Amino acid sequence: MNLLAFRKMHGLGNDFVVLDGRADAIAVAPAAVRAIANRRTGVGCDQLVVIEPAVVPAADAFMRIYNADGGEVGACGNATRCVARLLMEERGCDSVAIATAAGILACRRDTGGRVSVDMGPLRYAWEEIPLAHAVDTLHLPIADGPLVDGVAVSVGNPHAVFFVADAEAVPLADCGPRVEINPLFPQRTNVEAVQVLDRATVRMRVWERGSGITQACGTGACAAAAAAHRLGLVDAQVRVILDGGELLIELLTDGHVLMTGPATLAFSGVLDPTLLANGSRR
Amino acid sequence: MNLLAFRKMHGLGNDFVVLDGRADAIAVAPAAVRAIANRRTGVGCDQLVVIEPAVVPAADAFMRIYNADGGEVGACGNATRCVARLLMEERGCDSVAIATAAGILACRRDTGGRVSVDMGPLRYAWEEIPLAHAVDTLHLPIADGPLVDGVAVSVGNPHAVFFVADAEAVPLADCGPRVEINPLFPQRTNVEAVQVLDRATVRMRVWERGSGITQACGTGACAAAAAAHRLGLVDAQVRVILDGGELLIELLTDGHVLMTGPATLAFSGVLDPTLLANGSRR
Repeated sequence: MNLLAFRKMHGLGNDFVVLDGRADAIAVAPAAVRAIANRRTGVGCDQLVVIEPAVVPAADAFMRIYNADGGEVGACGNATRCVARLLMEERGCDSVAIATAAGILACRRDTGGRVSVDMGPLRYAWEEIPLAHAVDTLHLPIADGPLVDGVAVSVGNPHAVFFVADAEAVPLADCGPRVEINPLFPQRTNVEAVQVLDRATVRMRVWERGSGITQACGTGACAAAAAAHRLGLVDAQVRVILDGGELLIELLTDGHVLMTGPATLAFSGVLDPTLLANGSRR
Repeated sequence: MNLLAFRKMHGLGNDFVVLDGRADAIAVAPAAVRAIANRRTGVGCDQLVVIEPAVVPAADAFMRIYNADGGEVGACGNATRCVARLLMEERGCDSVAIATAAGILACRRDTGGRVSVDMGPLRYAWEEIPLAHAVDTLHLPIADGPLVDGVAVSVGNPHAVFFVADAEAVPLADCGPRVEINPLFPQRTNVEAVQVLDRATVRMRVWERGSGITQACGTGACAAAAAAHRLGLVDAQVRVILDGGELLIELLTDGHVLMTGPATLAFSGVLDPTLLANGSRR
């Protein structure tokens, strides 16, 4: 294999290796993904992203996303912002549409260089979260320490949002894994501990389904803002303060949610071909 | 600051960002080191290495090493192999001398591309390890679980080498930190659990002073081979099998120790200048 140019980007510390497979198709086997994602012997990343030609005329490109373990995943708000920034800089424009396995995502950038992604419609019906049976999704029948009376929201993936007096005091490493596997959530759930600071600001800590406590979760920030808005605690624009930084969440009148945040280029590079040939060996 | 080219290399998974400061001097403040070393928002590495002009005629270059926390350190066998490989490829030769804060290190490469570094003289006197008081350095008065009757060696840094029947069975995460701070070692010590497989092969696990269990420790491999040789358990050439891979250790007749192992280029890249400007912020 020839030398392969890549970019290393991140959104709030959620980091990506981005390859451009538009001119020449790039096929990455799971072992090559793991080799590239290795933080010591490879480049290191949470997800590997390959930009591919658009599959539909309405999109500017298709984005394929692999987790560090080599498995393909549907969508990622932080990765979408990063790819959107690359495409907008390339074209000298301020809006693009990116096709993903989870649908087409419309993206814009503001004058400060932050990138907005329309994360699609929020869903609140119990079947759509999904929950195991009919309950009031504004008052979940779950109580785990300070996590009580939660709100269920789907942002394409399930979330259980709990409002607390002090987000820092929540023993999330204890409660999170228990709530994640609560039988009410047949596909398990992400868990957010949210402290409302004022009508435009919340502090959020997150336990991500399958990952544990992370620095930032874009869909979690959307879920937190939507749940707080449903309860009348915040207005339609909410600044969400995460461990890894801040996201601005806007709840649109059409039921969609707009997420705005940074998309940062750490460096660009050229892969040594032996990295791909060597597979995942440490 | 302008765009800055770098290389990302590793020796047995001990990884480095290598900058070339020979033509144009590179000054890296501690905050910039931390920003570059950050594995999510920077490039990610255990140590940052800056190649500088040779300070003495006998050396081909000077190598300055910073830990990920920004502090400068004296020497690192794995990093020396990586820089040696770069210099030898650049010059099309098979030997170079690299000046470090710990002295000049002579390096060679073999036909397989592996790189050898003369790690200098081994020291066995109790004052040179150093130990707190006079003891037989072949039979240390320390007993912690399976770690008994150890050997003290200095490879520029202190090591306590313990021979065991089964290296995998040693609870190193328990015993390591206790032996590290044993009052016999006023500067604390690295701790090795070594299983002799035959007269040319040992299996070693290591607790590194200040770092904990690591995948590979070059000076620890030298200490293990030297201690085993002093006890008559191995010959003068020893293959040391570490979690991260293998090193070949040769005990020379002049008291020096030669370490041979891989030096791998993962990728080359160009730093985004904002990475340096942003400092260590996550």
